[in-house]
Amino acid sequence: MNGNQISAPGCPIARGLDSVGDVWSFLILRDAHVGFTRFDQFRQNLGIAPTMLTKRLASLTGAGLLERRLYSERPPRDEYVLTEAGRDFLPVLMMLGAWAQRNCGNGLARYVDATTGLTIEPIGVDAVSGAELGSRPIRMSLPEPS
Amino acid sequence: MNGNQISAPGCPIARGLDSVGDVWSFLILRDAHVGFTRFDQFRQNLGIAPTMLTKRLASLTGAGLLERRLYSERPPRDEYVLTEAGRDFLPVLMMLGAWAQRNCGNGLARYVDATTGLTIEPIGVDAVSGAELGSRPIRMSLPEPS
Repeated sequence: MNGNQISAPGCPIARGLDSVGDVWSFLILRDAHVGFTRFDQFRQNLGIAPTMLTKRLASLTGAGLLERRLYSERPPRDEYVLTEAGRDFLPVLMMLGAWAQRNCGNGLARYVDATTGLTIEPIGVDAVSGAELGSRPIRMSLPEPS
Repeated sequence: MNGNQISAPGCPIARGLDSVGDVWSFLILRDAHVGFTRFDQFRQNLGIAPTMLTKRLASLTGAGLLERRLYSERPPRDEYVLTEAGRDFLPVLMMLGAWAQRNCGNGLARYVDATTGLTIEPIGVDAVSGAELGSRPIRMSLPEPS
Protein backbone atom coordinates (compact mmCIF):
# COMPACT_ATOMS: atom_id res chain seq x y z
CA MET A 1 0.00 0.00 0.00
CA ASN A 2 1.12 3.55 -0.44
CA GLY A 3 -0.05 6.86 0.93
CA ASN A 4 -1.03 7.36 4.52
CA GLN A 5 -4.73 7.81 3.87
CA ILE A 6 -5.25 4.42 5.45
CA SER A 7 -4.66 6.06 8.80
CA ALA A 8 -7.57 8.44 8.23
CA PRO A 9 -10.68 8.18 10.40
CA GLY A 10 -12.42 6.36 7.53
CA CYS A 11 -9.97 3.43 7.64
CA PRO A 12 -12.04 0.27 7.24
CA ILE A 13 -9.46 -1.90 9.01
CA ALA A 14 -9.61 0.26 12.14
CA ARG A 15 -13.40 0.37 11.92
CA GLY A 16 -13.58 -3.40 11.59
CA LEU A 17 -11.30 -3.95 14.57
CA ASP A 18 -13.29 -1.46 16.58
CA SER A 19 -16.47 -3.34 15.74
CA VAL A 20 -15.13 -6.79 16.55
CA GLY A 21 -13.40 -5.67 19.72
CA ASP A 22 -10.49 -7.83 20.71
CA VAL A 23 -8.86 -11.22 20.36
CA TRP A 24 -11.45 -12.89 22.62
CA SER A 25 -14.16 -11.64 20.29
CA PHE A 26 -12.41 -13.25 17.30
CA LEU A 27 -12.43 -16.55 19.19
CA ILE A 28 -16.09 -16.18 20.21
CA LEU A 29 -16.97 -15.58 16.55
CA ARG A 30 -14.93 -18.64 15.58
CA ASP A 31 -16.85 -20.76 18.10
CA ALA A 32 -20.16 -19.31 16.89
CA HIS A 33 -19.25 -20.46 13.39
CA VAL A 34 -18.60 -23.92 14.78
CA GLY A 35 -22.19 -23.87 16.04
CA PHE A 36 -21.84 -22.83 19.67
CA THR A 37 -24.64 -20.54 20.88
CA ARG A 38 -24.75 -20.77 24.66
CA PHE A 39 -22.85 -18.91 27.34
CA ASP A 40 -21.55 -22.09 28.96
CA GLN A 41 -20.35 -23.51 25.65
CA PHE A 42 -18.25 -20.42 24.94
CA ARG A 43 -17.02 -20.26 28.53
CA GLN A 44 -15.94 -23.87 28.69
CA ASN A 45 -14.36 -23.96 25.27
CA LEU A 46 -12.44 -20.71 25.64
CA GLY A 47 -11.61 -20.91 29.34
CA ILE A 48 -12.63 -17.27 29.53
CA ALA A 49 -13.70 -15.57 32.78
CA PRO A 50 -17.50 -15.21 32.94
CA THR A 51 -17.40 -11.43 33.44
CA MET A 52 -15.13 -11.07 30.42
CA LEU A 53 -17.37 -13.30 28.32
CA THR A 54 -20.48 -11.34 29.34
CA LYS A 55 -18.81 -8.11 28.22
CA ARG A 56 -17.63 -9.57 24.92
CA LEU A 57 -21.03 -11.07 24.08
CA ALA A 58 -22.72 -7.75 24.85
CA SER A 59 -20.20 -5.92 22.70
CA LEU A 60 -20.58 -8.32 19.75
CA THR A 61 -24.36 -8.09 20.08
CA GLY A 62 -24.22 -4.29 20.19
CA ALA A 63 -21.97 -4.27 17.12
CA GLY A 64 -24.49 -6.37 15.23
CA LEU A 65 -22.39 -9.53 14.87
CA LEU A 66 -24.43 -11.67 17.26
CA GLU A 67 -28.11 -11.67 18.05
CA ARG A 68 -29.49 -12.57 21.48
CA ARG A 69 -32.43 -14.97 21.56
CA LEU A 70 -34.45 -16.46 24.40
CA TYR A 71 -34.30 -20.25 24.14
CA SER A 72 -35.91 -21.04 27.51
CA GLU A 73 -38.60 -19.08 29.32
CA ARG A 74 -38.36 -20.88 32.67
CA PRO A 75 -35.72 -20.33 33.70
CA PRO A 76 -35.07 -17.44 31.25
CA ARG A 77 -32.02 -18.32 29.16
CA ASP A 78 -30.49 -16.56 26.20
CA GLU A 79 -28.45 -17.89 23.36
CA TYR A 80 -26.29 -15.99 20.90
CA VAL A 81 -26.55 -16.63 17.19
CA LEU A 82 -24.63 -15.12 14.31
CA THR A 83 -26.32 -12.32 12.38
CA GLU A 84 -25.75 -11.93 8.66
CA ALA A 85 -22.80 -9.62 9.44
CA GLY A 86 -21.47 -12.25 11.83
CA ARG A 87 -21.75 -15.00 9.23
CA ASP A 88 -20.03 -12.69 6.76
CA PHE A 89 -17.00 -12.67 9.10
CA LEU A 90 -16.09 -16.29 8.31
CA PRO A 91 -13.77 -15.43 5.40
CA VAL A 92 -11.78 -13.08 7.68
CA LEU A 93 -11.29 -15.91 10.19
CA MET A 94 -10.35 -18.38 7.47
CA MET A 95 -7.83 -15.99 5.95
CA LEU A 96 -6.26 -15.52 9.38
CA GLY A 97 -6.12 -19.29 9.83
CA ALA A 98 -4.63 -19.74 6.37
CA TRP A 99 -1.97 -17.17 7.18
CA ALA A 100 -1.07 -19.15 10.33
CA GLN A 101 -0.94 -22.37 8.32
CA ARG A 102 1.58 -20.77 5.97
CA ASN A 103 3.61 -18.95 8.60
CA CYS A 104 3.31 -20.50 12.06
CA GLY A 105 4.85 -23.92 11.66
CA ASN A 106 3.40 -27.37 11.28
CA GLY A 107 0.88 -29.29 13.30
CA LEU A 108 -2.12 -27.09 12.57
CA ALA A 109 -5.54 -28.33 11.54
CA ARG A 110 -6.59 -27.85 7.94
CA TYR A 111 -9.85 -26.66 6.41
CA VAL A 112 -11.41 -29.28 4.19
CA ASP A 113 -14.19 -28.90 1.62
CA ALA A 114 -16.87 -31.17 3.10
CA THR A 115 -18.13 -32.15 -0.34
CA THR A 116 -14.90 -32.94 -2.17
CA GLY A 117 -12.74 -33.86 0.85
CA LEU A 118 -9.94 -31.71 -0.54
CA THR A 119 -7.93 -29.34 1.63
CA ILE A 120 -9.02 -25.74 1.15
CA GLU A 121 -6.41 -23.11 0.31
CA PRO A 122 -7.98 -19.80 1.31
CA ILE A 123 -6.65 -16.87 -0.69
CA GLY A 124 -7.80 -13.27 -1.00
CA VAL A 125 -8.80 -12.10 -4.44
CA ASP A 126 -10.06 -8.86 -5.94
CA ALA A 127 -13.44 -9.88 -7.35
CA VAL A 128 -13.16 -7.09 -9.94
CA SER A 129 -9.76 -7.84 -11.48
CA GLY A 130 -9.42 -11.45 -10.36
CA ALA A 131 -5.90 -10.64 -9.09
CA GLU A 132 -4.71 -12.12 -5.81
CA LEU A 133 -4.63 -9.52 -3.02
CA GLY A 134 -1.11 -8.29 -2.47
CA SER A 135 0.00 -9.04 -6.02
CA ARG A 136 -0.69 -5.56 -7.40
CA PRO A 137 -0.10 -2.05 -6.06
CA ILE A 138 -3.12 -0.57 -4.32
CA ARG A 139 -4.05 2.79 -2.88
CA MET A 140 -6.77 4.05 -0.60
CA SER A 141 -9.54 6.30 -1.81
CA LEU A 142 -11.04 8.50 0.89
CA PRO A 143 -14.81 8.79 1.14
CA GLU A 144 -16.47 11.92 -0.25
CA PRO A 145 -17.15 14.43 2.53
CA SER A 146 -20.88 14.34 3.27
CA MET B 1 -18.23 -25.11 9.91
CA ASN B 2 -19.18 -28.20 11.80
CA GLY B 3 -17.52 -30.28 14.47
CA ASN B 4 -15.68 -28.77 17.38
CA GLN B 5 -12.22 -29.79 16.23
CA ILE B 6 -11.60 -26.14 15.46
CA SER B 7 -11.24 -25.64 19.20
CA ALA B 8 -8.39 -28.13 19.35
CA PRO B 9 -4.85 -26.96 20.19
CA GLY B 10 -4.05 -27.10 16.48
CA CYS B 11 -6.62 -24.45 15.56
CA PRO B 12 -4.93 -22.17 13.03
CA ILE B 13 -7.17 -19.20 13.90
CA ALA B 14 -6.12 -19.33 17.55
CA ARG B 15 -2.49 -19.79 16.52
CA GLY B 16 -2.68 -16.83 14.17
CA LEU B 17 -4.21 -14.59 16.83
CA ASP B 18 -1.62 -15.73 19.32
CA SER B 19 1.13 -14.85 16.87
CA VAL B 20 -0.22 -11.42 15.97
CA GLY B 21 -1.08 -10.52 19.54
CA ASP B 22 -3.81 -7.96 19.87
CA VAL B 23 -5.70 -5.20 18.14
CA TRP B 24 -2.78 -2.77 18.44
CA SER B 25 -0.64 -5.28 16.60
CA PHE B 26 -3.14 -5.42 13.72
CA LEU B 27 -2.92 -1.62 13.47
CA ILE B 28 0.90 -1.66 13.62
CA LEU B 29 0.93 -4.20 10.79
CA ARG B 30 -1.50 -2.02 8.85
CA ASP B 31 0.80 0.98 9.27
CA ALA B 32 3.82 -1.12 8.31
CA HIS B 33 2.04 -1.99 5.05
CA VAL B 34 1.50 1.72 4.46
CA GLY B 35 5.27 2.09 4.67
CA PHE B 36 5.87 3.21 8.24
CA THR B 37 9.03 1.76 9.76
CA ARG B 38 10.02 3.98 12.68
CA PHE B 39 8.95 4.01 16.29
CA ASP B 40 7.85 7.65 16.18
CA GLN B 41 5.80 7.12 13.02
CA PHE B 42 3.82 4.32 14.63
CA ARG B 43 3.50 6.21 17.89
CA GLN B 44 2.23 9.40 16.32
CA ASN B 45 -0.13 7.72 13.90
CA LEU B 46 -1.68 5.35 16.41
CA GLY B 47 -1.60 7.59 19.48
CA ILE B 48 -0.31 4.57 21.38
CA ALA B 49 1.61 4.81 24.66
CA PRO B 50 5.37 4.34 24.08
CA THR B 51 5.66 1.46 26.56
CA MET B 52 2.75 -0.33 24.86
CA LEU B 53 4.28 0.26 21.42
CA THR B 54 7.66 -1.06 22.57
CA LYS B 55 6.02 -4.26 23.80
CA ARG B 56 3.98 -4.75 20.63
CA LEU B 57 6.98 -4.17 18.34
CA ALA B 58 9.03 -6.67 20.36
CA SER B 59 6.21 -9.19 20.21
CA LEU B 60 5.70 -8.80 16.44
CA THR B 61 9.46 -9.07 15.94
CA GLY B 62 9.60 -12.18 18.11
CA ALA B 63 6.73 -13.72 16.18
CA GLY B 64 8.58 -13.15 12.91
CA LEU B 65 6.22 -10.56 11.41
CA LEU B 66 8.60 -7.61 11.71
CA GLU B 67 12.36 -7.44 11.46
CA ARG B 68 14.44 -4.95 13.41
CA ARG B 69 17.12 -3.10 11.47
CA LEU B 70 19.66 -0.48 12.49
CA TYR B 71 19.21 2.58 10.29
CA SER B 72 21.49 4.94 12.19
CA GLU B 73 24.67 4.10 14.07
CA ARG B 74 25.10 7.43 15.82
CA PRO B 75 22.82 7.72 17.60
CA PRO B 76 21.83 4.03 17.36
CA ARG B 77 18.33 3.86 15.88
CA ASP B 78 16.26 0.88 14.81
CA GLU B 79 13.51 0.61 12.30
CA TYR B 80 10.97 -2.18 11.87
CA VAL B 81 10.29 -3.66 8.46
CA LEU B 82 7.85 -6.35 7.41
CA THR B 83 9.24 -9.83 6.96
CA GLU B 84 7.84 -12.15 4.31
CA ALA B 85 5.33 -13.46 6.89
CA GLY B 86 4.42 -9.86 7.70
CA ARG B 87 3.87 -8.98 4.05
CA ASP B 88 1.78 -12.12 3.72
CA PHE B 89 -0.58 -10.67 6.34
CA LEU B 90 -1.91 -7.99 3.95
CA PRO B 91 -4.81 -10.13 2.63
CA VAL B 92 -6.02 -10.71 6.21
CA LEU B 93 -6.08 -6.95 6.82
CA MET B 94 -7.82 -6.29 3.52
CA MET B 95 -10.47 -8.94 4.17
CA LEU B 96 -11.13 -7.37 7.57
CA GLY B 97 -11.43 -3.95 5.94
CA ALA B 98 -13.73 -5.33 3.25
CA TRP B 99 -15.93 -6.86 5.93
CA ALA B 100 -16.19 -3.45 7.62
CA GLN B 101 -17.02 -1.81 4.29
CA ARG B 102 -19.93 -4.23 3.85
CA ASN B 103 -21.12 -4.21 7.45
CA CYS B 104 -20.11 -1.06 9.32
CA GLY B 105 -21.94 1.69 7.49
CA ASN B 106 -20.88 4.30 5.00
CA GLY B 107 -18.10 6.81 5.00
CA LEU B 108 -15.21 4.36 4.87
CA ALA B 109 -12.23 4.60 2.58
CA ARG B 110 -12.04 2.18 -0.34
CA TYR B 111 -9.13 0.12 -1.70
CA VAL B 112 -8.33 1.02 -5.28
CA ASP B 113 -6.24 -0.90 -7.79
CA ALA B 114 -3.44 1.61 -8.44
CA THR B 115 -3.09 0.49 -12.05
CA THR B 116 -6.71 0.38 -13.20
CA GLY B 117 -8.15 2.95 -10.76
CA LEU B 118 -11.05 0.59 -10.06
CA THR B 119 -12.32 -0.08 -6.55
CA ILE B 120 -11.13 -3.44 -5.26
CA GLU B 121 -13.68 -5.89 -3.88
CA PRO B 122 -11.69 -8.26 -1.66
CA ILE B 123 -13.24 -11.70 -1.37
CA GLY B 124 -11.95 -14.96 0.05
CA VAL B 125 -11.70 -17.88 -2.34
CA ASP B 126 -10.61 -21.48 -2.09
CA ALA B 127 -7.74 -21.64 -4.57
CA VAL B 128 -8.43 -25.36 -5.09
CA SER B 129 -12.14 -25.32 -5.95
CA GLY B 130 -12.46 -21.67 -6.90
CA ALA B 131 -15.51 -21.41 -4.60
CA GLU B 132 -16.00 -18.31 -2.49
CA LEU B 133 -15.23 -18.97 1.20
CA GLY B 134 -18.44 -19.46 3.14
CA SER B 135 -20.41 -20.67 0.12
CA ARG B 136 -19.81 -24.38 0.73
CA PRO B 137 -19.81 -26.57 3.86
CA ILE B 138 -16.37 -27.08 5.36
CA ARG B 139 -14.90 -29.18 8.12
CA MET B 140 -11.63 -29.20 10.00
CA SER B 141 -9.06 -31.92 9.57
CA LEU B 142 -6.80 -32.40 12.57
CA PRO B 143 -3.07 -32.78 12.03
CA GLU B 144 -1.57 -36.26 12.21
CA PRO B 145 -0.08 -36.94 15.64
CA SER B 146 3.70 -36.78 15.30
